[in-house]
Amino acid sequence: MSQDKGGSVGCVVPQTAQFDQPLLLTCGVTVPRYQLVYETYGELNADRSNAVLICHALSGHHHAAGLHHEDDKAAGWWDNMIGPGKPIDTERFFVVALNNLGGCHGSTGPSTIDPETGNPFGSRFPLVTVKDWVDSQARLADQLGIAQWAAVVGGSLGGMQALMWTMSFPERIRHAVVIASAPRLSAQNIAFNDVARQAILTDPDFHGGDYYAHGVVPTRGLRLARMLGHITYLSDDGMGSKFGRLLRGERFNYNFDVEFQIESYLRYQGDKFAGYFDANTYLLMTKALDYFDPARRYGEGNLSRALSRAKASFLIAAFDSDWRFSPDRSREIVKALTDNRLPVTYAEIRSVHGHDAFLMDDPQYFAVMRRYFDRIAAEGV
Amino acid sequence: MSQDKGGSVGCVVPQTAQFDQPLLLTCGVTVPRYQLVYETYGELNADRSNAVLICHALSGHHHAAGLHHEDDKAAGWWDNMIGPGKPIDTERFFVVALNNLGGCHGSTGPSTIDPETGNPFGSRFPLVTVKDWVDSQARLADQLGIAQWAAVVGGSLGGMQALMWTMSFPERIRHAVVIASAPRLSAQNIAFNDVARQAILTDPDFHGGDYYAHGVVPTRGLRLARMLGHITYLSDDGMGSKFGRLLRGERFNYNFDVEFQIESYLRYQGDKFAGYFDANTYLLMTKALDYFDPARRYGEGNLSRALSRAKASFLIAAFDSDWRFSPDRSREIVKALTDNRLPVTYAEIRSVHGHDAFLMDDPQYFAVMRRYFDRIAAEGV
Repeated sequence: MSQDKGGSVGCVVPQTAQFDQPLLLTCGVTVPRYQLVYETYGELNADRSNAVLICHALSGHHHAAGLHHEDDKAAGWWDNMIGPGKPIDTERFFVVALNNLGGCHGSTGPSTIDPETGNPFGSRFPLVTVKDWVDSQARLADQLGIAQWAAVVGGSLGGMQALMWTMSFPERIRHAVVIASAPRLSAQNIAFNDVARQAILTDPDFHGGDYYAHGVVPTRGLRLARMLGHITYLSDDGMGSKFGRLLRGERFNYNFDVEFQIESYLRYQGDKFAGYFDANTYLLMTKALDYFDPARRYGEGNLSRALSRAKASFLIAAFDSDWRFSPDRSREIVKALTDNRLPVTYAEIRSVHGHDAFLMDDPQYFAVMRRYFDRIAAEGV
Repeated sequence: MSQDKGGSVGCVVPQTAQFDQPLLLTCGVTVPRYQLVYETYGELNADRSNAVLICHALSGHHHAAGLHHEDDKAAGWWDNMIGPGKPIDTERFFVVALNNLGGCHGSTGPSTIDPETGNPFGSRFPLVTVKDWVDSQARLADQLGIAQWAAVVGGSLGGMQALMWTMSFPERIRHAVVIASAPRLSAQNIAFNDVARQAILTDPDFHGGDYYAHGVVPTRGLRLARMLGHITYLSDDGMGSKFGRLLRGERFNYNFDVEFQIESYLRYQGDKFAGYFDANTYLLMTKALDYFDPARRYGEGNLSRALSRAKASFLIAAFDSDWRFSPDRSREIVKALTDNRLPVTYAEIRSVHGHDAFLMDDPQYFAVMRRYFDRIAAEGV
C-alpha cells in the first residue's frame, strides 16, 4: 500500500487554458483574462464521469505526477498517490492538476507580464480567495467538458478548495476528499502567516512587490518565511526523532554558524525555496489561507449552515501529530457534515510526520485513500 | 492569592558590582573584567541565610520588582510575585535580581563600550552559557556576602540557571525553584531560535553585529524575532480565546495592512521590543538556551547522572498549555531528581496562558509558590 505499489504516469506535458471571460474576484477586482497551466493523467471516459481534480497547497503547482523529462530526478509532488495502480488510479480516473490563479508556475500571477505595461503585474496583482480559485477551476472544468467531478481532492489549503467546491458548485462534485485541512485558520495559524509575510514585506529587496523591475528578489524574507513554515509542517516529535540535538560538527563552534543539524536542514530548505518561488505568490497564498472561512457569513460562524448547500460525499482525513491543522479542526468539519446528514468517512491517522504527513507514504493513510477511491470507482464512474 | 495580596517594595535604585578577576567562559574566551547591575529587595538577615536569587529569562533584566521612579507606569517584571506579603515575601527574604552578563540593561554586554577601543564590543563580545552566568552570579553572591542562597528561582531560561546552580555549586543553594523550564531544548525549540537569529543576522542593518558604528539597528530582524517568540509564548487556545478571528476593521481590506487583531497585537509587540532591546543580546540569549544541556557530557545525555551532584530541594512547576516547554520537559527533571532521591515538589498548573503563564497571576500557581516559600521560611532562614 505504499510507494512500491503502482507505476508512474510517465512523461507528461503541461497544457495551458486561456480564459477571456472576465472573472470578478471576492476583493472586488475583475481580472479581464487569465491563463491556467494544468496537467492531466489517465483518460476521460465516454460519459465524462471519471474526472478527479487535484487542488494544490501553499507551495504546490500543476505538476502532481510523472516526469517532465525522462531524466528528471524528481517526479510530481504527489506522484506516490497518483498513477496506474496507485490510490488515485489513473487506469480508472482522469486526473486534472492545475496551478492556481496567482501562482508562479505558469498560471497568471504576480510574476506574469502584464500585456498592457510590458512589466510583471507585481503589486498590481489582486489578492485572490479560495472561492475565486474554485470559480476559476469551474471554468477549467467547462473547457475540459467536465460537468461534474467524480472527486475534488486536496491537502491543507487544497482541502479548503475541495470543501469550497461542495458549497460553490454542489451539483458539480460527487466526492470531496479533504486531508489535513481546517474550516478556517486559528489565531495562531494567522499569526505564523503574518510573521512570514512581514519577513517578506519588510525585506528591503521587496520594493513594495515590484522587485522584478529592480533586478532583485526578496530572498531573505522568503527564506525566513519558508524556514518558519517548515517548523509548522513537522511535528515536535518527528523533528526530535529525525534531528534531536545532533550537531553538525564534533563540538560546539560558539558562533552563529550552523551548530545543530536541524539548523542546517532549515537553512537549506529556506535557501532552496527562496531560489525558485515567487515572493508575491507566497504572500497571496498565505492571505487566501487567512481569508478562508465559509462559515463567516452565517450566524456566529455556523459551519453547519454553510455546508447545508453541499450534496457531495466526503472523506475527511487528519493526522494525529499535525499541530498546524490538528484532528480537532477536521472533526469540526465532520460535525458540520453530520449535522447535515451528509455521507462522511473520517480517518484519523497515526503519523509522526505532522502536517507534512499528507504528502508522505504511510500504509494506513494510503489504505484509506485507496479504499475510498475504490468505492468511488465501484459507484460507477 | 493573586496580585491584590501584598504590597510593593516601593522605589528601588539599581546597583552595580564591578568584577576585576578574569572569568573564563565555556567558549574558551576570558572576560578580563565586567560589571553586573542588580537590585535588592528586603533585608539580609544576621546569619545571611535568607537570600533569594531571581534569574531572568530571554528578555528580562534586574528590575524584577518595585518602581524606579514614583511616577513609573509599570513596575518590575515580576512585581506580582515579589514584595511584602507576596509569595516571595520581602519581609522575610532578601531578594537579589540581576541583569546577566551579555545583557543590555546595564551589565557588561555587546552594547557596552569596550574601554580598549572606545566602541561597543559588538561582534567581539563572546557567547556565554548558562554555566557562565551561574559562575558570574556566584561572584556576585561573594561580593554580597552570601555563602548560600535560601533559593534560586527562575522561569524558562531563568529556571535553567536555577537548575545549573544545583550542579555547579551544590553547597551554595538550599532550594531550586524551576518554573516552565526544560533540561535542554528540543529540535523544535532550536529551530524557532534559529529562525529568529537568521532574521537578525540577515538584516542588512546588522552589519555583522557592529551596527552601532553605522548608526542603525537591525529593527526588522529583531521585530520578526520577537513576533515569532510571542507566538511560542502563548497557547493556541489562549490566543484563540483572546483574539480568535476578530478583525480590526469591519470587513477585510484585501491588502497587506492589518486585517486581524492578532496581527495588530504581534506587530505592536515586535515594534515595541525592537525599539529598546539590543539585537546582539537577543542572539546571545537564544544561543545560551540552545547550548544548555547539563546532561550532555554524561552517557547518552543522562540527566540523572548530571544531577547526582545536586543537594538542594526542588520545586518544579509547569503549565499544561505551555507547548514551548511542556510539562513533559519538567517531568524529565522530576524523574532525574527522584532517581537521585532528592526532595522534589512537582506542580502542574492548569492555565490557558501557555509559556507566559509563569509571569501571570494565577491563584493555583501563586498558592503553590506561596506555600513553597512559606516552607523555606519555616525551615528557618
